[in-house]
Amino acid sequence: MARKIILDVDTGIDDALAIAYALGSEELELIGVTGTYGNVLVPTGTRNALAILELFGREDVPVYAGPGHARAKDSFEVLEISEFIHGKNGIGEAQIPDAKREVEAKSAVDFMVESVREYGDELVIVPVGPLTTVAAAMEANPEFAANAHIVNMGGALTVPGNVSAWAEANINQDPEAADMVFRGVGDITMIGLDVTLQTLLTTEETAKWEALGTTGGDFLAAATNYYIKAYETTAPYLGGCGLHDPLAVGVAVDPTLVTTIDINMKTDTEGETRGRTIGDETRLNDAEKTAHVAVAVDVQRFLGEFMRRLTDLAAATPSR
Amino acid sequence: MARKIILDVDTGIDDALAIAYALGSEELELIGVTGTYGNVLVPTGTRNALAILELFGREDVPVYAGPGHARAKDSFEVLEISEFIHGKNGIGEAQIPDAKREVEAKSAVDFMVESVREYGDELVIVPVGPLTTVAAAMEANPEFAANAHIVNMGGALTVPGNVSAWAEANINQDPEAADMVFRGVGDITMIGLDVTLQTLLTTEETAKWEALGTTGGDFLAAATNYYIKAYETTAPYLGGCGLHDPLAVGVAVDPTLVTTIDINMKTDTEGETRGRTIGDETRLNDAEKTAHVAVAVDVQRFLGEFMRRLTDLAAATPSR
Repeated sequence: MARKIILDVDTGIDDALAIAYALGSEELELIGVTGTYGNVLVPTGTRNALAILELFGREDVPVYAGPGHARAKDSFEVLEISEFIHGKNGIGEAQIPDAKREVEAKSAVDFMVESVREYGDELVIVPVGPLTTVAAAMEANPEFAANAHIVNMGGALTVPGNVSAWAEANINQDPEAADMVFRGVGDITMIGLDVTLQTLLTTEETAKWEALGTTGGDFLAAATNYYIKAYETTAPYLGGCGLHDPLAVGVAVDPTLVTTIDINMKTDTEGETRGRTIGDETRLNDAEKTAHVAVAVDVQRFLGEFMRRLTDLAAATPSR
Repeated sequence: MARKIILDVDTGIDDALAIAYALGSEELELIGVTGTYGNVLVPTGTRNALAILELFGREDVPVYAGPGHARAKDSFEVLEISEFIHGKNGIGEAQIPDAKREVEAKSAVDFMVESVREYGDELVIVPVGPLTTVAAAMEANPEFAANAHIVNMGGALTVPGNVSAWAEANINQDPEAADMVFRGVGDITMIGLDVTLQTLLTTEETAKWEALGTTGGDFLAAATNYYIKAYETTAPYLGGCGLHDPLAVGVAVDPTLVTTIDINMKTDTEGETRGRTIGDETRLNDAEKTAHVAVAVDVQRFLGEFMRRLTDLAAATPSR
């Protein structure tokens, strides 16, 4: 039986690749996409998610909108660096048609809460943006935290952050939410920069999508090439773009792709290291560890799975 | 054949316990103690090392003095917090006689360089204070870094620091030296706060040393009780004192006491996180990893080994 998954995305180029990875994975049943802010505003992100789902012929997957800004703020504006990396439209200026349908009337928070209540251990939630929606679900339902299983893209434990020396972009958007989630959720796997900066894609791979001659292949290649180009400026030493969000989906499919350490985590919300994900020294000696932080990844196996799933998915879309 | 070991200490209460652990380990041959600054000034630390060696009947182990201050400074003063934790005399105001001998004329740097040249893979250097002397040895001899095997107590990777939110005390004394060592040495095992704050001692254990009725038992108990008392103020949530320095010696005897991750490390020397030990993002994808950072420890097994070795050692000293 396929494992049910909710993808919580701020779509975003690597979010688009994460959606494609989920759609291309028979092991997963994508029961819904929830839209958050971050790389883009919520309306842009949900627009992109709906358009991508339609491009891949999956109008059956509902899309829900989450809160539009961090807990401690009352608005949100896209950062210049986010626009540089993902483009103004969030998907690297790639042009794909608007979907014929709209976001659902139900909120992302209600959808998460109801899904955890209904499916429990059969469900994994994969947030790949700020943790605002997950934190709101915790608040909305006191049983959520104990019953949710989360595989999160965000944070950095053994390497520096990417928006400051200590903060990763997703966590940095809403440190209060991240701290609630890391302290409260009983089962959270953190897929941070520690591993996602090891899983790199280059134009050698995107050329294979282009060569398919399909609308899906063209979209994946155009968006990803934009992303790779941005990485050439922001992190030239890497030699490719980090597959942040898709790796979290990959781990939801197959946890053996990464090596994790068991640790109780927190997010700094005060002081100079606001936005840092780090072990909670006050729970260091607790026998129970609620977080599982990925510190190593089988790069070649993941890249193989990634290319196979996305290429097969894109090959099945109409010719350009 | 016993593994040769050099202990580089700023003696210090847990340094004293580390010396005792080495003396109590048949698997090790302590070929020399080198004295650095940190918990105390170099002269106080070498005085304590000589006195402790004599207390345990080991006047055969030579003691060498290293540089008295950090690379980027021209002097050193003991911090108030160090005095609070280790006492003015460095060993918790425990009174033991001065040794009859003095430090060697040869410098700690020369001794390290010559020992690595002579013994190579048979030797492990265990620095449990600032890395100033090791960095000076690297500088003094271009072959040192490639041939030295180091098990270092210092740093914090997955937990906050203990002098700031990001810096551990030993590393913080000389970040430039630490960065040279982490980047340059081909084989370094980091025993940081990640694991040393898990290996806790309480007065339940020190009472066993007191009960021996020996000079060695009295010394270990008096010094450690002072240290435990300081921890009740500085980190009451731990419920004991961290066995920082002895754990590094324990791992030099038996690496299976800890679980390590392989990673290329650096120490931040600039910016807001000066003194932080963290993965080097520019060498994240290098196939060769030079550091092995302990992230988990078999607490019960280590505490068992620690108590057995130190108790046997103290039991063999003269009656009080």
